[in-house]
Amino acid sequence: MRTLSPADCAINTATLGFQAPIGEVIEAVARAGFGAIAPWRREVESHDVAAIARHIRDAGLAVPGYCRSTYIPAADKAGFAANVEANRRAIADAGVLGAKSFVMVVGGLPAGSKDIAAARAQVAEATGLLLRHAKSCGVRLALEPLHPVYAADRSCLSLLSEAIDMCETVEGAAADPWLGLCLDVYHLWWDPNLARDIARAWGRILGFHVCDWLVPTADVLNDRGMMGDGVIDVPRIRAMVEEAGFAGFTEVEIFSAQNWWKRPMDETLAVCAERLASAT
Amino acid sequence: MRTLSPADCAINTATLGFQAPIGEVIEAVARAGFGAIAPWRREVESHDVAAIARHIRDAGLAVPGYCRSTYIPAADKAGFAANVEANRRAIADAGVLGAKSFVMVVGGLPAGSKDIAAARAQVAEATGLLLRHAKSCGVRLALEPLHPVYAADRSCLSLLSEAIDMCETVEGAAADPWLGLCLDVYHLWWDPNLARDIARAWGRILGFHVCDWLVPTADVLNDRGMMGDGVIDVPRIRAMVEEAGFAGFTEVEIFSAQNWWKRPMDETLAVCAERLASAT
Repeated sequence: MRTLSPADCAINTATLGFQAPIGEVIEAVARAGFGAIAPWRREVESHDVAAIARHIRDAGLAVPGYCRSTYIPAADKAGFAANVEANRRAIADAGVLGAKSFVMVVGGLPAGSKDIAAARAQVAEATGLLLRHAKSCGVRLALEPLHPVYAADRSCLSLLSEAIDMCETVEGAAADPWLGLCLDVYHLWWDPNLARDIARAWGRILGFHVCDWLVPTADVLNDRGMMGDGVIDVPRIRAMVEEAGFAGFTEVEIFSAQNWWKRPMDETLAVCAERLASAT
Repeated sequence: MRTLSPADCAINTATLGFQAPIGEVIEAVARAGFGAIAPWRREVESHDVAAIARHIRDAGLAVPGYCRSTYIPAADKAGFAANVEANRRAIADAGVLGAKSFVMVVGGLPAGSKDIAAARAQVAEATGLLLRHAKSCGVRLALEPLHPVYAADRSCLSLLSEAIDMCETVEGAAADPWLGLCLDVYHLWWDPNLARDIARAWGRILGFHVCDWLVPTADVLNDRGMMGDGVIDVPRIRAMVEEAGFAGFTEVEIFSAQNWWKRPMDETLAVCAERLASAT
C-alpha cells in the first residue's frame, strides 16, 4: 500500500474548527500541499458560492464532498417536504462547487417518535427523490452511515450493510453510479462485519474519512482523535477500502473541540500531513 | 402481550446506585413486590456469600443474573489467565447465590492494542474455558453484547448477531443450553437487524434488561433513562423477546448518576413498577 502524501488527501474543513473565513481556510489547505478540500454549508451558504468555487479551483484543490444534508425524517409531511427542499438547494450548491459528492448524514428520529423503521423509510424515499436532482446537478449522493451512538438524533442509518442495502433498494437506484457511500473509520471501525461489507461496497465508495477513536472519549461528538492517537487500525481499513475500488482522496475529518480546534490551522494541517503518512 | 407486574420483574441493583448495603437493597426490592434481584459483585465479594444467598431466598426473590464478568482480553497470556481465573471465582459465587446466569460483559481492547479481532478471539477462548466450570456450578453463561460505543473499552462484542455466532462457535457449545445471551434494549435498540436476530436467538435468551435511551444523552455510561422517558420502543422489543421463547424476569437496569441514583430507593422502585406496567 502506498504511503499517502498530502496531494492524495483532502481536508474536511470541520477539522480546522471553522476558526477562519472559508477563503483563509482554502489558502491554508492549499499552502500545506493537500489535493482537496471538503467544505461545509455553514461556510458556503449566504456567501457567493460561485466565487468560493472559483477560489477553490484557482488554489488547485478538488472537492470530493460537500457537507452535509439537512436531516430528513420529520414528524409530518410538510416537514419532510421542507427537508427535501433544503437538500435540493444544497445539492445545487454542491454542483456549483464542483463537488464530486453530497454527503448524506440522514438524521435520526423525528421529535416524539420511537419508530426508527419509519425514519429509515423516509430516508429511502427522500434519497430517491433527490437522486434525479443530484444527477442534473452533476453531483453524486453519498450515504454516510454514522456510529450507532447517533442513531436517535443524527443518523438512523448506522451499519454499512444497511447503507449498501439502501443503495440497492432506493427506487430506480439499484445499479445507479450516482448513489454511493461515504465511509468514515470513526463510525465503522468496531463492526465485526466490516471486511465483508467493505468488499460488498465495491465500486460504491465515493468518500473515505479518517480520524481516530480516543480512549477514553470525553464526548462522542467533538472528541475525535488524530489518526494514530486512538485504537482504530486505520491502515487496515484503508487497505480494504482501496481494495474495494476506492481511488479518491483520503479525507481527514476530526471534530475536536478541546484539542485540534484550539490550535492554529497551519499546525493542525502539518500534523494531519504527518499522520496521513505515518498512521493512515 | 400481558401487562408486567412487579412479580414478573427483577431489579438489577445498579438501578439503585449502590447507596445501601446489599441487605437493605434486598429488603427494599422485596418490599416493593418484585420477583427477583440481580446483584453485582461489588456488593457480594468480600462478604459472606452464603448469608447473602440465604437472605435473598428468605426474601422470596429469585436471582436471574449475577453481574458481571471480569473483562477478558489481556495484553499477554498471564493477564488472560488471571482474567479467566477471576471469572471462575465469580461464577462459583453465582452458584452459591443460586443465580440462573452469570452476565458476561466481555471487555474491549487490551491496552495498546488495535486488534479487535484478536480481542474477540480471546473472548471466545475464555468462554469455552469457563463453560465447563459454569456447568459444574449450575450457572449458565449469558453473553451480553454492548452498544458499539463501548467497543474499545468495555465490550468487543457489539452486535446480537455476533453474540449468537459466538454461542454457536465456542468450542463444544454449538447446542449447549448452558451458554446463552443477555439482551439489553439500551445496547440493541438501534440495530436494523434486531427483529431477525432476536428470532434467531430463540431459546438462547437468558436475560432481558430494560431501560431507555435519552435524547440528549449527557453521558453514554451513566445517563440511561427510565422506561418511557426516551426513544426506545421497549414494548415492541419485549414482544419479540418473548416470542423468541424468553419467559424469565424482565430486569430493570438503569445507570443514572444524575437522576435515579440520587433518589431514595423506595421512590425509584415505585417508578420502576409503574413504568414496567405502562411503558415496557
